[in-house]
Amino acid sequence: MLQLSDLREGMKLPELKKNITQEKINLYAEASKDFNPIHINEAFAKKTPAGGTIAHGMLNLAYISEMLTTAFGLSWLKGGRLSVRFKAPARPGDTITVSGKIVRMQKSDVETLVTCDVLCSNQKDEQIITGEASVKIKANP
Amino acid sequence: MLQLSDLREGMKLPELKKNITQEKINLYAEASKDFNPIHINEAFAKKTPAGGTIAHGMLNLAYISEMLTTAFGLSWLKGGRLSVRFKAPARPGDTITVSGKIVRMQKSDVETLVTCDVLCSNQKDEQIITGEASVKIKANP
Repeated sequence: MLQLSDLREGMKLPELKKNITQEKINLYAEASKDFNPIHINEAFAKKTPAGGTIAHGMLNLAYISEMLTTAFGLSWLKGGRLSVRFKAPARPGDTITVSGKIVRMQKSDVETLVTCDVLCSNQKDEQIITGEASVKIKANP
Repeated sequence: MLQLSDLREGMKLPELKKNITQEKINLYAEASKDFNPIHINEAFAKKTPAGGTIAHGMLNLAYISEMLTTAFGLSWLKGGRLSVRFKAPARPGDTITVSGKIVRMQKSDVETLVTCDVLCSNQKDEQIITGEASVKIKANP
């Protein structure tokens, strides 16, 4: 976990890379109980505008959250803010990269508001999710 | 799924209720590969400020996404926007309610931007997640 004294504007957060597989999508469907056939039924999904099964947007977003939990711990889990746009789906076979960069640090007496740009992209550098996340880090935790 | 002609400002989206259990949290940990002990190790979690295991924030958010997928289908999955704040954790034994209300509809020639307030709260009416979601719905899908 990063300490407040380590953080600087412009700093990159530790990246994550994930392979998207139909097996992971199926497991996510089970965990979230979201069995929409666009995610799990290839024959159905092929006939839709999606052209094949796609990962749950929330699965991709979960990887962004994992990066933020690794970087900021409980400060992210309790009181984090997230603003995202779902730009394109991820598909089985894709390798996605989750990255982030600190863009603003606003200090007050009791805490620092740290704002990060976050991005989930695929192996073709296509944007899957773009957005901004912020956490409040206490000066004396 | 709701049709564009059904939608009105002030309209409530179909609600979801979910029981949070340790079993669901464990399954979500497996699906997201997020095994932070705050979620799955009661002995560890009891000694933290959380006071016991808590659900992944993304699990609660997944239920908000499920409500929006049910209401808006592919329009949500491709091109949705989401802005949320994690206010408090959900815990095993909680029953959470996910709800939403259309607060704005902005029409253009080709599509309508539908913006909804969204809320995830527990059985004590405590806010777990608050936020706003928007989808663009094509005039002639």
